[in-house]
Amino acid sequence: MNVNTPMNTLGIVKRSIVRADKAAVEKLARFGVATIHEAMGRIGLMKSHMRPIYAGARACGTAVTVLMQPGDNWMLHVVAEQIRPGDLVVAAVTSDCTDGYFGDLLATSFAARGAKGLVIDAGVRDVKDLTAMRFPVFSKAISAKGTVKATLGSVNVPIVCAGAFVNPGDAVIADDDGVVVVPAEFAQRAADAAEAREANEGDKRTKLASGVLGLDLYKMREPLEKAGLKYVD
Amino acid sequence: MNVNTPMNTLGIVKRSIVRADKAAVEKLARFGVATIHEAMGRIGLMKSHMRPIYAGARACGTAVTVLMQPGDNWMLHVVAEQIRPGDLVVAAVTSDCTDGYFGDLLATSFAARGAKGLVIDAGVRDVKDLTAMRFPVFSKAISAKGTVKATLGSVNVPIVCAGAFVNPGDAVIADDDGVVVVPAEFAQRAADAAEAREANEGDKRTKLASGVLGLDLYKMREPLEKAGLKYVD
Amino acid sequence: MNVNTPMNTLGIVKRSIVRADKAAVEKLARFGVATIHEAMGRIGLMKSHMRPIYAGARACGTAVTVLMQPGDNWMLHVVAEQIRPGDLVVAAVTSDCTDGYFGDLLATSFAARGAKGLVIDAGVRDVKDLTAMRFPVFSKAISAKGTVKATLGSVNVPIVCAGAFVNPGDAVIADDDGVVVVPAEFAQRAADAAEAREANEGDKRTKLASGVLGLDLYKMREPLEKAGLKYVD
Amino acid sequence: MNVNTPMNTLGIVKRSIVRADKAAVEKLARFGVATIHEAMGRIGLMKSHMRPIYAGARACGTAVTVLMQPGDNWMLHVVAEQIRPGDLVVAAVTSDCTDGYFGDLLATSFAARGAKGLVIDAGVRDVKDLTAMRFPVFSKAISAKGTVKATLGSVNVPIVCAGAFVNPGDAVIADDDGVVVVPAEFAQRAADAAEAREANEGDKRTKLASGVLGLDLYKMREPLEKAGLKYVD
Amino acid sequence: MNVNTPMNTLGIVKRSIVRADKAAVEKLARFGVATIHEAMGRIGLMKSHMRPIYAGARACGTAVTVLMQPGDNWMLHVVAEQIRPGDLVVAAVTSDCTDGYFGDLLATSFAARGAKGLVIDAGVRDVKDLTAMRFPVFSKAISAKGTVKATLGSVNVPIVCAGAFVNPGDAVIADDDGVVVVPAEFAQRAADAAEAREANEGDKRTKLASGVLGLDLYKMREPLEKAGLKYVD
Amino acid sequence: MNVNTPMNTLGIVKRSIVRADKAAVEKLARFGVATIHEAMGRIGLMKSHMRPIYAGARACGTAVTVLMQPGDNWMLHVVAEQIRPGDLVVAAVTSDCTDGYFGDLLATSFAARGAKGLVIDAGVRDVKDLTAMRFPVFSKAISAKGTVKATLGSVNVPIVCAGAFVNPGDAVIADDDGVVVVPAEFAQRAADAAEAREANEGDKRTKLASGVLGLDLYKMREPLEKAGLKYVD
Repeated sequence: MNVNTPMNTLGIVKRSIVRADKAAVEKLARFGVATIHEAMGRIGLMKSHMRPIYAGARACGTAVTVLMQPGDNWMLHVVAEQIRPGDLVVAAVTSDCTDGYFGDLLATSFAARGAKGLVIDAGVRDVKDLTAMRFPVFSKAISAKGTVKATLGSVNVPIVCAGAFVNPGDAVIADDDGVVVVPAEFAQRAADAAEAREANEGDKRTKLASGVLGLDLYKMREPLEKAGLKYVD
Repeated sequence: MNVNTPMNTLGIVKRSIVRADKAAVEKLARFGVATIHEAMGRIGLMKSHMRPIYAGARACGTAVTVLMQPGDNWMLHVVAEQIRPGDLVVAAVTSDCTDGYFGDLLATSFAARGAKGLVIDAGVRDVKDLTAMRFPVFSKAISAKGTVKATLGSVNVPIVCAGAFVNPGDAVIADDDGVVVVPAEFAQRAADAAEAREANEGDKRTKLASGVLGLDLYKMREPLEKAGLKYVD
Repeated sequence: MNVNTPMNTLGIVKRSIVRADKAAVEKLARFGVATIHEAMGRIGLMKSHMRPIYAGARACGTAVTVLMQPGDNWMLHVVAEQIRPGDLVVAAVTSDCTDGYFGDLLATSFAARGAKGLVIDAGVRDVKDLTAMRFPVFSKAISAKGTVKATLGSVNVPIVCAGAFVNPGDAVIADDDGVVVVPAEFAQRAADAAEAREANEGDKRTKLASGVLGLDLYKMREPLEKAGLKYVD
Repeated sequence: MNVNTPMNTLGIVKRSIVRADKAAVEKLARFGVATIHEAMGRIGLMKSHMRPIYAGARACGTAVTVLMQPGDNWMLHVVAEQIRPGDLVVAAVTSDCTDGYFGDLLATSFAARGAKGLVIDAGVRDVKDLTAMRFPVFSKAISAKGTVKATLGSVNVPIVCAGAFVNPGDAVIADDDGVVVVPAEFAQRAADAAEAREANEGDKRTKLASGVLGLDLYKMREPLEKAGLKYVD
Repeated sequence: MNVNTPMNTLGIVKRSIVRADKAAVEKLARFGVATIHEAMGRIGLMKSHMRPIYAGARACGTAVTVLMQPGDNWMLHVVAEQIRPGDLVVAAVTSDCTDGYFGDLLATSFAARGAKGLVIDAGVRDVKDLTAMRFPVFSKAISAKGTVKATLGSVNVPIVCAGAFVNPGDAVIADDDGVVVVPAEFAQRAADAAEAREANEGDKRTKLASGVLGLDLYKMREPLEKAGLKYVD
Repeated sequence: MNVNTPMNTLGIVKRSIVRADKAAVEKLARFGVATIHEAMGRIGLMKSHMRPIYAGARACGTAVTVLMQPGDNWMLHVVAEQIRPGDLVVAAVTSDCTDGYFGDLLATSFAARGAKGLVIDAGVRDVKDLTAMRFPVFSKAISAKGTVKATLGSVNVPIVCAGAFVNPGDAVIADDDGVVVVPAEFAQRAADAAEAREANEGDKRTKLASGVLGLDLYKMREPLEKAGLKYVD
């Protein structure tokens, strides 16, 4: 460790980040969060309080991250400049806060920079306008409460957002089922695994629709009996 | 008590249950949860955290019950075999869990068996697909988080689901207002009482719409005065 | 203080209240909650658990207030008589309760009296009917659980509703972003301030849409540097 | 079913109940809640929001049950008369409520009747006095908020309390770890099973204290390897 | 209304406030929160999430109020100067926040100014030191998370704290059961009413301890029967 | 990236980890969590729901980490073998769970291995015994609910615990104010910074105790005036 390495990562904007492979991210965009989460081995999911602001919202992009103070959205203006087309902004706060950090003006700016959406473990507002714009936002809360611009946070540092660890450049996929983080280095493998998993599901769906039981399809009767399951009348 | 009666009801599947009368359940299906709950004497309602996964979801059926472990949906495959047309699966977990126990594959299987829907005091996923299928689900959470298949629970034992006691075979009705449980033996009387109550409401609605006050319609002025209500300017 | 002034404000209905200026309230109705809240200096917002029962619900009116006991909606019938066209009922409970205090019959009565909607820090039911009526309701919960009519509360006394202080006659505006209270005496100034604020936003939106950054539009680069923000690669 | 069986169980006081065997309950009183819960097969535990009002509180008795309305403690006076020495009052509310249903006067009365304590899924008050009396209370909340006496509930009907099903007469044990319900018919077997379990623990404790690993004591190495556990450096 | 009256009350320190009568506050200090709350007619109680940081904490004083921003405790330094001996600081935040706004240094300063304690609807830290100092604090949370000093709030304006409305100068009493606010003008009458209530309780306690039932002491048997209560065997 | 790097980190036990410098950790043990958190630049704090199971509990050690499934504590037996004297076990679950993962037997085993305590974002039980042992535990909940041993997690992989990122080997300090994580590489600098901060506090405390105001001690009057603070009478 260099003695000059900052112990405190607040007050920093990292400009150059390694983004997940573009083609891999585009491939990930074809799959649902549940499928990708399974394909990843059930790692990287945010907590279930993260909800879309409108039904059917969906986003996939490379993370530019931002860490903010409670009640202070100053860094959302700073992060805007770091957005490249295809990025998704992932925002966390240093302690729990439901204030409305983000509204239609910032959404206009983010969209102009090519952002794919916003994932924020805090509140947002102007949801009617955001919905009309079809700008996908996943948040913890909806609140008209505004924020100040007074204290520094950081941009493009590793963050914990809604219980998930996010590195700048990671692929992040969000839909009605939640938000999942795919480390940049695994984007291609996760996309391939999701594809394989989905291919496999079509056949299962057909069989189940025809009345075949999961008990038989997945050969569960024997392990259930071994575990001691008793049928009684 | 027979000394061999199991103290522990985990690991059991009861195959033969007494279902509420079919005609009574069909009659109950015509009424809203609030009406039935009132007609029942305000008994049997689940807690208000049970919400439909899409607006307008609605279900009514006879309960097949399932008790599961946190993070483990193995018994949902076991319960599928016990579903008969007209049944509604009612699922509880031995401790609070928001994991996604149920998705589009299980829904396909349940639907193929004739299930009317699912009431689950836990999380579900694939909500976009479930909505497209119009398979009604009432749950505590939405989460992409998958579950394992490792530990036994039970099927068709009495359970507590979201604060309500449910016996297999009970009639269960769910809509935008919540979920109510009608003991099988009272299904007909509850349906009749709901019908009487609803008949009574049409007249009240007309009077209230014409400007008559509830104070007068329900003759509340005297009891309010007796209770000590004071009007001041 | 007169020794006869009641220490306890329960059991009182105040009939004559000073309502916010009608034209000012009509002007306020043109603006969103977030805009008005900002224009007010970020004062008067209810907590973010207050949500519309259907997407797009929106209401603006002068408050008639009602304070109730847990599980008891008797005073909603009392308040109905005090509603004048243009009023919005604002209801609080003396302790946290999610019971369904309000349904389609009361909505019919309130609408017949000219009410603009209901803001209630408790639960409501019959949401399908309320939605069909387009009667805007903002509440903490949805619950089929009925309430009794046994204990007095008060009408048109000052109340705390969802963390905000409300005097009868205040202007209250509610939309997808939340609920804000404007003291009657400030209704005109708040409406004017909201108008000025909104006029100002159009120009900002155009610039942000063209790619201008908030960093430059709001001249944030210098204060950020002064605060110590560091850019690294 | 008799057509006269009440569908609604509100407004009833059952005087004669079958209490769990006295000797069995006394034996249960020797064991902790965690031990009994394990011995029962992990059934019958209340939710973890039930906490003692003072550290070290502990109670064991036969349940007299009471169901109340939100904000209304009338039935606590009714239940007092049904208490016999060795009973424990178990109280539930028809919807979530944190009001202070119980204080030092009721505790004085319950204690005079021979009650072993109170388990209540609501709030209590006068905790300083209750602590001084060493009257064990397990509750969801502490609140000075008083309640009214206006609406009927029931005494000695089956209830759901904090997620657990309780029949009058069941053995209920509460300590720092939570509250567990043992059906009356299983009291003796549960006590015996708890005794066996505890006997078994002393030896394990000695081995673990000497440095033996649970991995070896419980022979977990092979099943872990089979499950796929990998050790890396 | 004067056109210059500020619509926004942020950024203001009111130096001269009317404090509740000193003797009345001293008399109130002799009674518990539950007793005073009852004596007041069940008005003015804060929500039950307000808890003492150590068992047995107790405080009574005249409120100096402070309104702060999330994550920002600047105004606690401003309020310190306004404290007079016998005051109690009552602090609210403009949106929910659990950060540690207050610790041992501020407590040292407050104590030096003669403060009786702190009631804060947010978090505090250094609880070991605060406990050692026996400086009574009632808060929503305990958190080591520090706060910034960047944005103005107000001192000695009316606030809503934990759901209760507080005017500067009001009497505030806090103990294990919660926190109650007595408007300054009613301090004497509330103290007298509390005294009367408590006098009355001693006799009741004796009777209940001797085995007299509340049913008889409060003459409840007749109203219960009228309400329809049925005794069954 | 090596194509063989595991995408999924479940099912792994890392045996060799780099622990924070022993002397640095010992020095950190002298300071409170609030002080260290400040000294670190307000980074690394767990959420405030993490509470000690007994007042005054305190622990400091090097993290051995464990990731588990909901309702499954198998890996706590696996982690025991990896504990070295001076370590603190830090445990997270893949989704929210309050089950009792840990009790007196595991505590006996951990203590025999030299563990300094346990930090777990889940529930624990046997709190009376743990308190008697003075084995410091910081948890989200207390619950008698047992767990199964059926599904793999991991040991000594990076985890997110209660919102904080923890690498195996990091220094973790826990006391009444919460739990803070110090990256291993910064342990010495954090200890030094904490020492400097604390040295600085003694002088401040003396001044504040003598009645000097923070307004003057911290020279806040000018910045407050600049920010627009107004004093009125």
